[in-house]
Amino acid sequence: MRIETVTAKVFRHSSTIARDSDGHGHPGPAVPASSALFTITSYTGVQGHALTRAPDVDPAVLDRFVRPNLIGQDPLRADKLWYGIYKWQRLSGGLLTDRVLAMVDLALWDLIGKASGQPVWKLLGGHKDKVPAYASTMCGDDLPGGLATPDDYARYAEWLVQRGYKAIKLHGWMPPMPGAPDVRKDAAACAAVREAVGPDIRLMLDPHHFYSRSDALWLGQRLEALDFLWMEEPMEEASMSSYQWLSSNLTRLNILGPETAAGKHWTRGEWVRNGACDMVRTGVWDVGGINPSLKIAHMAECFHISCEVHGTGAGNLAVAAGVPNCTYYERGLLHPFLDYEAPKEYQLRIDDEMDSDGYVNLRDMPGLGQDLDFDYIDANLI
Amino acid sequence: MRIETVTAKVFRHSSTIARDSDGHGHPGPAVPASSALFTITSYTGVQGHALTRAPDVDPAVLDRFVRPNLIGQDPLRADKLWYGIYKWQRLSGGLLTDRVLAMVDLALWDLIGKASGQPVWKLLGGHKDKVPAYASTMCGDDLPGGLATPDDYARYAEWLVQRGYKAIKLHGWMPPMPGAPDVRKDAAACAAVREAVGPDIRLMLDPHHFYSRSDALWLGQRLEALDFLWMEEPMEEASMSSYQWLSSNLTRLNILGPETAAGKHWTRGEWVRNGACDMVRTGVWDVGGINPSLKIAHMAECFHISCEVHGTGAGNLAVAAGVPNCTYYERGLLHPFLDYEAPKEYQLRIDDEMDSDGYVNLRDMPGLGQDLDFDYIDANLI
Repeated sequence: MRIETVTAKVFRHSSTIARDSDGHGHPGPAVPASSALFTITSYTGVQGHALTRAPDVDPAVLDRFVRPNLIGQDPLRADKLWYGIYKWQRLSGGLLTDRVLAMVDLALWDLIGKASGQPVWKLLGGHKDKVPAYASTMCGDDLPGGLATPDDYARYAEWLVQRGYKAIKLHGWMPPMPGAPDVRKDAAACAAVREAVGPDIRLMLDPHHFYSRSDALWLGQRLEALDFLWMEEPMEEASMSSYQWLSSNLTRLNILGPETAAGKHWTRGEWVRNGACDMVRTGVWDVGGINPSLKIAHMAECFHISCEVHGTGAGNLAVAAGVPNCTYYERGLLHPFLDYEAPKEYQLRIDDEMDSDGYVNLRDMPGLGQDLDFDYIDANLI
Repeated sequence: MRIETVTAKVFRHSSTIARDSDGHGHPGPAVPASSALFTITSYTGVQGHALTRAPDVDPAVLDRFVRPNLIGQDPLRADKLWYGIYKWQRLSGGLLTDRVLAMVDLALWDLIGKASGQPVWKLLGGHKDKVPAYASTMCGDDLPGGLATPDDYARYAEWLVQRGYKAIKLHGWMPPMPGAPDVRKDAAACAAVREAVGPDIRLMLDPHHFYSRSDALWLGQRLEALDFLWMEEPMEEASMSSYQWLSSNLTRLNILGPETAAGKHWTRGEWVRNGACDMVRTGVWDVGGINPSLKIAHMAECFHISCEVHGTGAGNLAVAAGVPNCTYYERGLLHPFLDYEAPKEYQLRIDDEMDSDGYVNLRDMPGLGQDLDFDYIDANLI
């Protein structure tokens, strides 16, 4: 099997997510937005797709780095092709991002699944045919009745539990929200949520990412008292030794990371090797795709360390279901004003439909299990 | 897809390998021998096969541990099924060996490949469509013209280079051979081979496995002077700290291990974590199959450590070709008196045909690429 074409379509749709001055998303009025469909097609007509952001399909990047390493190659040899593109990254002047690597890798795995007639989550090990989801809230905001106060979080958490979730992760308040960052406000929201949902719901926190060591420790100690499962990225992750220090000082709370630190599976190896995390983070869009995610999960498994997947979508779901040591799928970001269950205009179904017990059930369709509306996409090309 | 039957056939064939009093193989007259064909069959009639030793298909083990965890299950979910059987190991009283885990895992992967229409080496990453082989000699012996003297090794190494090999691994003299164990005799054979093949052939040594620290270090220093690539298992591997000590004292020679140490990918994680090896060893029959081998290779890749595959056969070949960080396929064991190229009576082709440049070319057939003579097997059942 050989790859014949590598194509991308940028298309318009609407979005009800507004970005604040620091880049975090909040509910907003419907506005025009764009996304991209990246497609790899074999000579036999089998196609693999990845949905991504429009900047990831920059024609210059595709022409210079992606197509020369894919066209004419055997798409089944996914990790070989990953390395072929990856090795161009060093001298690409930053053009060839990990997101591009991830986009290619996801499309290749979708194609491999379709060419094989198998769902990708099975090819990755097939551990779980349903994965418990945690509700991942948006960051705090200043919207009345939104996520503006600890009580707002508590009321929303009650609704999430009614919806079926058995686990909830809060994102705290970040600048430019009034009063943020403030570990005391974060802790108050966490306490309010624990009070609201009782002891049997698993809780996690993903707070402001630029706290000091002392603030991070203070916050972590409060989370220990509230029986939280993990805390993510309370400090800049480039300082791995700060995380070694934090992990060694918080014996009851798991530190999960790294998430945004560059360096793919190699950086995750360093964090595990050096005890900088209790659980290791991967995410197909953070580390360059499914292949490096699988390596991270396997590496962590050698040390009885769980590998928790960051972010949503069919690729992350396939990894979470495939490997033995991923506990949860992250479902979100969620907000009282938004309907997460509704498909986007370019989807026939969302990737991660959840049942009333809080499980996302894996699909048996070949490939990644995405159900895209190609007619919509073709009718809305930019 | 569901598994309908799990069957095993024990069959007779001939062997020209004789075992000495310590269990090492040497050339001998043709004698009766037996092997087993282990087969997993889906309701749709797709079959996966593993060839193994007759004791591995003990009917009691299959009935108690293997069939209850496979029958009715989806064979595509290989790592889930691996864990299902593995968890019975602890209380099996030693009956459920890692070899049984490996046998099941190999048959599952053969089935997955066939159900998918894909060769397994591609599904594992597909890094290499041909893998350089090293010639792995039998242990030294006392057979005139065999491997009885350093000069015998040198002459045989010259022949191996003519055959196409670009790398050769010696197994040294082991008890009960006269004079063994003796690091000086091992070193003399290594020096004679280096002298015979020149500087451009890669050489490795797998000596007696029960040397002392001081003997292992003395031997390793001689191998450094002879520009050997690696040394394997010169001491009992249960003492990991002895290997930390040896690795730290041999900066030019790579220590490759562990091979026979129990504990699958977890033990390999410890060796890498603790700097007890420079390259890590896996082998599908040593660690319980392809799934743990992939985890070991991925873990090692996170630390820029190569993962070298122990042993022959289609499963080890698939791993060696699939992952980026395996340098060689081990081809052997070889001896001047034996024809490795001839298929066994139960094979239509050997698994690892090698070209005149020393490469084993991967096959494009679905599954593991084994080419078995089922008619022979059925005509020779025990």
